Amino acid sequence: MTKKKRPLIKAPPDRQEGPLLVPGFSAAGIHGGIKKSRRRDLALIVSDPPARVAGVFTQNHVKAAPVLISRTRVRSGPCKAVLVNSGNANACTGDPGLKDAIGLCQRTARGLAVDEHSVLVASTGHIGERLPVARIRTALPRLLREVRPGGILDAAEAIRTTDRFRKVLWSRSQVGGEPVTLCGIAKGAGMIRPNMATMLAFFLTDLKAPTTTLRRLLQEGTERSFDRISVDGDMSTNDTVLLLANGRSRNRSARVGSAEYEAFASLLFPMMSELAAMIVRDGEGATKAVDIQVRGARSDKDANVLAYHLANSPLVKTSFYGQDPNWGRLMAALGSAGPWVHPQKIDIFYDRVCLVRNGVGLGKKKTAQAGRVLQKQAFTVTIDLHVGTGSARVLTSDLTHDYVTLNASYPS
Amino acid sequence: MTKKKRPLIKAPPDRQEGPLLVPGFSAAGIHGGIKKSRRRDLALIVSDPPARVAGVFTQNHVKAAPVLISRTRVRSGPCKAVLVNSGNANACTGDPGLKDAIGLCQRTARGLAVDEHSVLVASTGHIGERLPVARIRTALPRLLREVRPGGILDAAEAIRTTDRFRKVLWSRSQVGGEPVTLCGIAKGAGMIRPNMATMLAFFLTDLKAPTTTLRRLLQEGTERSFDRISVDGDMSTNDTVLLLANGRSRNRSARVGSAEYEAFASLLFPMMSELAAMIVRDGEGATKAVDIQVRGARSDKDANVLAYHLANSPLVKTSFYGQDPNWGRLMAALGSAGPWVHPQKIDIFYDRVCLVRNGVGLGKKKTAQAGRVLQKQAFTVTIDLHVGTGSARVLTSDLTHDYVTLNASYPS
Repeated sequence: MTKKKRPLIKAPPDRQEGPLLVPGFSAAGIHGGIKKSRRRDLALIVSDPPARVAGVFTQNHVKAAPVLISRTRVRSGPCKAVLVNSGNANACTGDPGLKDAIGLCQRTARGLAVDEHSVLVASTGHIGERLPVARIRTALPRLLREVRPGGILDAAEAIRTTDRFRKVLWSRSQVGGEPVTLCGIAKGAGMIRPNMATMLAFFLTDLKAPTTTLRRLLQEGTERSFDRISVDGDMSTNDTVLLLANGRSRNRSARVGSAEYEAFASLLFPMMSELAAMIVRDGEGATKAVDIQVRGARSDKDANVLAYHLANSPLVKTSFYGQDPNWGRLMAALGSAGPWVHPQKIDIFYDRVCLVRNGVGLGKKKTAQAGRVLQKQAFTVTIDLHVGTGSARVLTSDLTHDYVTLNASYPS
Repeated sequence: MTKKKRPLIKAPPDRQEGPLLVPGFSAAGIHGGIKKSRRRDLALIVSDPPARVAGVFTQNHVKAAPVLISRTRVRSGPCKAVLVNSGNANACTGDPGLKDAIGLCQRTARGLAVDEHSVLVASTGHIGERLPVARIRTALPRLLREVRPGGILDAAEAIRTTDRFRKVLWSRSQVGGEPVTLCGIAKGAGMIRPNMATMLAFFLTDLKAPTTTLRRLLQEGTERSFDRISVDGDMSTNDTVLLLANGRSRNRSARVGSAEYEAFASLLFPMMSELAAMIVRDGEGATKAVDIQVRGARSDKDANVLAYHLANSPLVKTSFYGQDPNWGRLMAALGSAGPWVHPQKIDIFYDRVCLVRNGVGLGKKKTAQAGRVLQKQAFTVTIDLHVGTGSARVLTSDLTHDYVTLNASYPS
């Protein structure tokens, strides 16, 4: 059986794109000689005035050089610029890799006439290779010249690795009576080409807010979005999410818990969730986006473990690909995930079709109905354990021939 | 890219088959109407006199009816017979499923004129469907008539689901100066067709030993063998390993720690390891058998978690399939497994080729050498963490197009 490639989404239009401008932010994205193809691979985001910043980084014990640098710098002060490259992760490169990244930040800072510690850095691409520093240095003056308010689309293009489409969202709203603008760009994680399974996301806003607010917003937002997607259970060495706020808006500073905080959160959180969903839908090889909901667990923690176990089980994920309402695999996966479950209490739904009640299948008619749900590109699998009130939700994709093809191919 | 099917092993001869007789044991394997094909799907193993028995069963919270029955019965007394079927797991079938299995044990016991509690039962196959009890009842008299000392090969045939070859090993040795015979049969787990990812193994011997010895031997043996293989990280609802000893040999009873115990262990443990390795090599779709060795961890437990994380990582497993010495994926997987690791101390070897030292790659020449190791059908990946003395070892296979094909296909 060789299934034809059925990309889940080709390239949706940049939704809510609007003018894509955020007051005070400008950007650029060019080909800097890192990728062998002539594609854009070097991006710069600049904020005027320097922005307050919060960051969330990979929990992997093996952290790439740019992660080590940026997570220190987000703690120390305002951020003037973020330098991003694709095509090379600058991970597992030891002290020379750290020096490479620091050197590039210095050069960028010199070009912008700012303190080098106000330049953050992020990378995505192949692990274990040194950055082509000479080529990037040569490209830097050109990158700086290209920086302009409308350059965010080019930057979104330049952070792509094997993403099938660039991921940009833009939104504007009132915060305490003042207009506030937010733009988010991201690149996909997991189910993608070797060593490029990194997730990067940058959120730019003119909101006026203290750093504590930004940290709280980013923490809460990632827990609801990027932490709730799973493609293959592996965590990258380079994952980076940054929230930059330059205070250009005239809103009253958005302190934690204030009306301004809530107003901005209702702008930011949906955007983070939408970008996370775009990443799952664009997972290479993916033909399905499956929303796994576990409820009735003894605790939220239990529900979380179970939802992730289902989302990462190769047997479960191939059944989605095969459009096979194979609930036996769900039962087996639930029973082996660790948390205690009561098999005779488990109910399973595909969308609204209940095909397992009290741990027992409800027959061929229900299975046929569930089979029709599985033919959809997006659907929900709900597990009710009936042993408590804990719940969790994870968005995942299927395991396909294309996933194997893409990940078994030789590194470029 | 569509790789050609490269089965790892076709059908090796039944090695060390010998006469395949174990004093006091007889068996049969027939088509009992469970599988739609006309293949054998019903097996019976009989011991005369009844055997002492020890069992190890799945840790899955969702346990099939035969597991619930047999794990109670192994505690209560001697075992006269084991009834096994393939094609249907009798799992998630509720109380009716329990009654089905108990009824079949009763009929078998009546046919053998023994107590029904001395009949154990095991099943493997599709989850969530009732056994075709009427057809099995009709087949039972024929099964009983076919039982003969040389019938173990037929039984090994009848417990297969999608195994490419039957798995039988036979061995004889001296225990305390007396000849003792051991025969083991198994069917594969994981990386196999939907809902049939069960591992079953039965070890038959004429050893004289108390039940405590058998329990200890089985526990220790499975920890070294069946617990050390991983194919896709999912645990079946039906896994069952039994050790039956009927005491026909004239050896002095093998108490724990005695010379007899050691002599028999040196017969049993290698056989268990070899059967476990056969299961990995026969994993459907598998083209590689990879021995993952982690050493220098803070503890054996840490090493175990890390080894299993590598063995179950889709990105790592597809790199084996693609013959791609993609050590960045190993580093990323080691860093995200949970246990603390020191990235700058990690060494990685493919067989004897060291391509990562202190967390940094040793260059293209070493990578090319490692690439040649990956072309082999079997090789070792060694991780030295240099932070302690803990070690662990897991045997795994690769993640291939055929795995997706087999597991995405509709249930039969």
